[in-house]
Amino acid sequence: MNGAGNLMDFLDEPFPDVGTYEDFHTIDWLREKSRDTDRHRKITSKSKESIWELIKSLLDAWSGWVVMLLIGLLSGTLAGVIDLAVDWMTDLKEGVCLSAFWYSHEQCCWTSNETTFDDRDKCPQWQKWAELMTGHAEGAGAYVLNYFLYILWALLFSFLAVSLVRVFAPYACGSGIPEIKTILSGFIIRGYLGKWTLLIKTVTLVLAVSSGLSLGKEGPLVHVACCCGNLFCSLFSKYSKNEGKRREVLSAAAAAGVSVAFGAPIGGVLFSLEEVSYYFPLKTLWRSFFAALVAAFTLRSINPFGNSRLVLFYVEYHTPWYMAELVPFILLGVFGGLWGTLFIRANIAWCRRRKTTQLGKYPVLEVIAVTGITAVLAYPNPYTRRSTSELISELFNDCGALESSQLCDYINNPNMSRPVDDIPDRPAGPGVYNALWQLALALVFKIVITIFTFGMKVTRNLLCLAACDLTASSCRVQIPSGLFIPSMAVGAIAGRIVGIAVEQMAYHHHDWIIFKNWCRPGADCVTPGLYAMVGAAACLGGVTRMTVSLVVIMFELTGGLEYIVPLMAAAVTSKWVADAFGKEGIYESHIQLNGYPYLDVRDEFTHRTLATDVMRPRRSEPPLAVLTQDTTTVEDVETLIKDTDYNGFPVVVSRESERLIGFVQRRDLTLAIKNARQKQDGVVSSSVVYFTEDAPQLPASNPQPLKLRRILNLSPFTVTDHTPMETVVDIFRKLGLRQCLVTRSGRLLGIITKKDVLRHMAQMMNQDPESIMFN
Amino acid sequence: MNGAGNLMDFLDEPFPDVGTYEDFHTIDWLREKSRDTDRHRKITSKSKESIWELIKSLLDAWSGWVVMLLIGLLSGTLAGVIDLAVDWMTDLKEGVCLSAFWYSHEQCCWTSNETTFDDRDKCPQWQKWAELMTGHAEGAGAYVLNYFLYILWALLFSFLAVSLVRVFAPYACGSGIPEIKTILSGFIIRGYLGKWTLLIKTVTLVLAVSSGLSLGKEGPLVHVACCCGNLFCSLFSKYSKNEGKRREVLSAAAAAGVSVAFGAPIGGVLFSLEEVSYYFPLKTLWRSFFAALVAAFTLRSINPFGNSRLVLFYVEYHTPWYMAELVPFILLGVFGGLWGTLFIRANIAWCRRRKTTQLGKYPVLEVIAVTGITAVLAYPNPYTRRSTSELISELFNDCGALESSQLCDYINNPNMSRPVDDIPDRPAGPGVYNALWQLALALVFKIVITIFTFGMKVTRNLLCLAACDLTASSCRVQIPSGLFIPSMAVGAIAGRIVGIAVEQMAYHHHDWIIFKNWCRPGADCVTPGLYAMVGAAACLGGVTRMTVSLVVIMFELTGGLEYIVPLMAAAVTSKWVADAFGKEGIYESHIQLNGYPYLDVRDEFTHRTLATDVMRPRRSEPPLAVLTQDTTTVEDVETLIKDTDYNGFPVVVSRESERLIGFVQRRDLTLAIKNARQKQDGVVSSSVVYFTEDAPQLPASNPQPLKLRRILNLSPFTVTDHTPMETVVDIFRKLGLRQCLVTRSGRLLGIITKKDVLRHMAQMMNQDPESIMFN
Repeated sequence: MNGAGNLMDFLDEPFPDVGTYEDFHTIDWLREKSRDTDRHRKITSKSKESIWELIKSLLDAWSGWVVMLLIGLLSGTLAGVIDLAVDWMTDLKEGVCLSAFWYSHEQCCWTSNETTFDDRDKCPQWQKWAELMTGHAEGAGAYVLNYFLYILWALLFSFLAVSLVRVFAPYACGSGIPEIKTILSGFIIRGYLGKWTLLIKTVTLVLAVSSGLSLGKEGPLVHVACCCGNLFCSLFSKYSKNEGKRREVLSAAAAAGVSVAFGAPIGGVLFSLEEVSYYFPLKTLWRSFFAALVAAFTLRSINPFGNSRLVLFYVEYHTPWYMAELVPFILLGVFGGLWGTLFIRANIAWCRRRKTTQLGKYPVLEVIAVTGITAVLAYPNPYTRRSTSELISELFNDCGALESSQLCDYINNPNMSRPVDDIPDRPAGPGVYNALWQLALALVFKIVITIFTFGMKVTRNLLCLAACDLTASSCRVQIPSGLFIPSMAVGAIAGRIVGIAVEQMAYHHHDWIIFKNWCRPGADCVTPGLYAMVGAAACLGGVTRMTVSLVVIMFELTGGLEYIVPLMAAAVTSKWVADAFGKEGIYESHIQLNGYPYLDVRDEFTHRTLATDVMRPRRSEPPLAVLTQDTTTVEDVETLIKDTDYNGFPVVVSRESERLIGFVQRRDLTLAIKNARQKQDGVVSSSVVYFTEDAPQLPASNPQPLKLRRILNLSPFTVTDHTPMETVVDIFRKLGLRQCLVTRSGRLLGIITKKDVLRHMAQMMNQDPESIMFN
Repeated sequence: MNGAGNLMDFLDEPFPDVGTYEDFHTIDWLREKSRDTDRHRKITSKSKESIWELIKSLLDAWSGWVVMLLIGLLSGTLAGVIDLAVDWMTDLKEGVCLSAFWYSHEQCCWTSNETTFDDRDKCPQWQKWAELMTGHAEGAGAYVLNYFLYILWALLFSFLAVSLVRVFAPYACGSGIPEIKTILSGFIIRGYLGKWTLLIKTVTLVLAVSSGLSLGKEGPLVHVACCCGNLFCSLFSKYSKNEGKRREVLSAAAAAGVSVAFGAPIGGVLFSLEEVSYYFPLKTLWRSFFAALVAAFTLRSINPFGNSRLVLFYVEYHTPWYMAELVPFILLGVFGGLWGTLFIRANIAWCRRRKTTQLGKYPVLEVIAVTGITAVLAYPNPYTRRSTSELISELFNDCGALESSQLCDYINNPNMSRPVDDIPDRPAGPGVYNALWQLALALVFKIVITIFTFGMKVTRNLLCLAACDLTASSCRVQIPSGLFIPSMAVGAIAGRIVGIAVEQMAYHHHDWIIFKNWCRPGADCVTPGLYAMVGAAACLGGVTRMTVSLVVIMFELTGGLEYIVPLMAAAVTSKWVADAFGKEGIYESHIQLNGYPYLDVRDEFTHRTLATDVMRPRRSEPPLAVLTQDTTTVEDVETLIKDTDYNGFPVVVSRESERLIGFVQRRDLTLAIKNARQKQDGVVSSSVVYFTEDAPQLPASNPQPLKLRRILNLSPFTVTDHTPMETVVDIFRKLGLRQCLVTRSGRLLGIITKKDVLRHMAQMMNQDPESIMFN
């Protein structure tokens, strides 16, 4: 009896690590939720005991908002620092500020007093490298020297980036969004959101963007923000000890990341909702909203763009759009859809090629080579030499009267006497035609180089880590890279070209029937910048398949609220066209390529299979490994654990009746037996394991029984063997299950795990079921 | 054998009405979804047979988008017509256009050539009633006559509205949003979205708004759009025959409704997502987006506001906001939260009072009385006489140089020589102080009258229809009414008052430490219109508890993208303050008041009860009514159906083993037996009902068996008796179940229905469980 008393005490204490998960495994959402409710109940009942407990319970209730505040502050600050550093380092490739070397070109000339309004890009303090080293600012020699140094800096930056990632934090590579989607859906990848990843990703992101590679910082900023979220989770046991709650924080952090990437807080929340998150209750919506707000506000206080606006590419157009313009907008949507399809197909094909051939063996060399080629080809063309954000900004802009850009070299009407912001359509000058050629070349260059740049990105690391070789660093060297900005650049170039074409057509043929109604001579009817904006939205939509969040991001990005309809038309068209060629966006494609266990809410399962077709064991397989409630010995259990690699075992009344009692996790069972053998006297291999409520009184000669009801899940999820798989998939998706037991008229027949579901879905879609690697 | 052959044929045909639901019952989402997949599979497999079937399958695939297009077109058109009619009828209360009586005041004067820019409100064609009837435009007599006619028109409009609703479509009353929320969560209310409701609601909405009552047209427009959605569902059997698919269309229609109500397509989608919808897959998100786009575009083409903008209250502010202004913004948020609490509490208390006392017995008189009081009190004050939208529009506006409003009567600096859009802060003139008094009175008036106006709104109809008296028209007479615009008006008035106060304080005390940094003399630092906008958002947020959708609606409504942070700060504060006094928004309160079966996703269930505590039968009750798979006779079934009112019965192997086979719906059982008795020879009362796969061969002397496996649901949802109720609530919510069976180690113990869950939740929250009326 004494022994039994000890036993009860022992079982009332939780064993260490019970209820945690192993790396590369899927969490059980229902279990996490119910654990959190237990914790909450405990705190609430304790809070009535003393003032101190009450304060603790209030702190607990507010800890969610505190974490959001901290995430907003840190990710806003990091984004501001990254923006400033990228500005400075991008300019460093071309020259240096003499008055203070840590100033970027713009800051250098802003602080100079000699600047005139017209020519604020030029000031004596800012010197190109050739000028500084040889004293000659012009001439072929200076050009070649500048060109050479530009390439050298680019190579240096990308080499540094790739080395840092390689040595310190392999998880810092890529955009991180596919992995974050997978983590949010309930997968565990330890270290992916760790401190080292945060630090190295921030530094290498600056280096990678500054090196001039065709990649953006927006996707990686989401990863950085999620790392911040994970960091602050560790401050509160509410979040650090519950994988479900942690994911709520991470969803909000993703929103904060997009919020600072684009200065678009609402767009960030919607992005998290539409694109990234898996479980997004209303409470998380409100918290994301708060985190995104704080992050945007922090960024605005740092004011990296120097215009005290949140928006990255502020535009102001002076004319509305017209019905007939919907035709070119929809055509841009079609272009965007085609670009999305081309990009995803080419990217995936290139990634597969790298995986299977020798190409992937020299990843550092590959990065260096791509950087070199990018720099060599980019420098001669003024539209590719500068940073991609600057390019997009110029393409979005409307040509005012004072615009000095080549794109605005229109032939002015000499007797024009209108106010500044109402300039009629004019014939294009030689500068515009020149710019059109350069833009066309830039478009081709961007399309090709972006595909190869993202080919480098593919992460083979998880596969290596999990399946083959834990230290094989050779297959996990890449640099941080985002695809938002390059995609937008492609679209903006195409859009601007179309816009200028429509504008010139309308000017020269305003008697044509389509132009007659809205484009009188001398009217300002076509805004080429708007076409660039629509094109950018279409291309981004084609690649990522966002719709609502895309439109919101676009108009938060530009302030162009009046242009929702064109943006929506282009986004929807682009989605339709791209979906016609394949349902998956770039993130889903990469998830699939890497074999992550991700149950996409968009894939509709419409096949006529039943639970009985999917469950294990199959007909030819040995019967299901089960435990009985009162006849299994410790040794039996240990043998079972050694011989199988299942994640858990159903417990039945007896092997004959097959009536299900509950389900026990492998990890919990291992830990409990280990614990009992160490701490509990009399537990030996021949001890009987009891899952029943009361162990029977045994004669003293029998070994001490082991009672394990505490680790038994008494409410395992069951479906009948006749349940259509469509319903099973729905249940797995909506409830976030890890496994589900299959019964027929009360008898246990088999088990379906998330991996089984994913493999079955892959099989039904004629894909290789073996590509699903994880459980 | 011949009989058995016939039997099989008979069972392969679906009986009419199998799988439909009764009025005031809850649907089973999983069942609807699986029915739709079956339908889809049939069409896909048929489509390979012939070209015609292929075309049909393509039409079926595109029918969703077609329905969205139609909804967008019709709801956009209706909204435009309603806007025009309200404009005209509101003006009709004051006067008439001589050149064309169907012109509103503004249209009348726009078409007149004699209008000057300054005074475009006055033109000879527009005559007030007194002027037209007596020839005198001014003087006490004319004022009294105008006053009298104003009241008379108001009474006429509201009498017409209330009579039309009473006679033709009782469901057209109220805002309809609580009912739509309930319908979208899976409840059936036949006729609530019918053609008559659509027609009458459209007409009476115009009458009610024109009568000058303190109500808006925004909520009812959501109802109108949902009626359109329901109408177009009936064109496609895909939607008309599947309650689940129908609800997807209705969710999108709700988005289109808000889109046209505010000219805010994105806000509409988010409103549908955050506030109204229950099941909102990504596919519905995209479709809602499309419907909202088409609706907004149609409305823009009709152009009822005459400014070719989508936005209702377009504002253009010329100064950014400053950090220190967050303090008054947050104070406005607190005010909004308090207003929300006051409004909800007072409204619910008044509704309960009307329900239980004599007050509710004279509903027509009540409407007439409230209209009369509103008109009498509203006319003397210029800020309440005009329509509420005009008031909000004026309060939101910044005072430019040309503004003729009393609110802009500032003392101008004579030596001011700045451009028009940069006016420094100025001291307020007498007009502003006068306006402040009138605004304060208007605020008190609006607060009081809005509470009473919405007190009329409460629908007792469903309770009457379901529980007591189907023809009791006395308890279902109200008028259509929305609360968005009145709430916004309250907030805008309060905000403008605070804004002017801050502005004057900053002007007179710019040496105070808080103003020193950002408000130099001669600078334009405070924009009172912005305060009005923030106040409106805060009050709307307090009443409805929206956050993200609210901010999006506000900036789509005003075009003020730069002011996200102030709007967010006010919205979040308002939500926190209001939530501190009670978690429920106005819609949830009305759902609760009416006892609808609505499982709110926001209510967190944290009690420690188990499925065994909630399931029926309780310990004292008779055992669960079950059918056996092969021993029940037709007579037994008929007795069971007659004696009980359960919605369905579990089928078990035998009463002894209690092993569960499946679940059969009462309605299907009734229909099947009726059908069999009519059409199938040899089925008599003593026939045995078989739910097994094969009926045994019976001797010829036995009566013909009745095989009913086809109507048996072989995959009923089960949980164990140890499942925490928290998980059960989650499962009901996420999977949209109607009922769930409870088992222990494979034996059937009991059943939990949605009603049981709701009653248990009400009990745990110390509310009356009997208030949940429906299943």
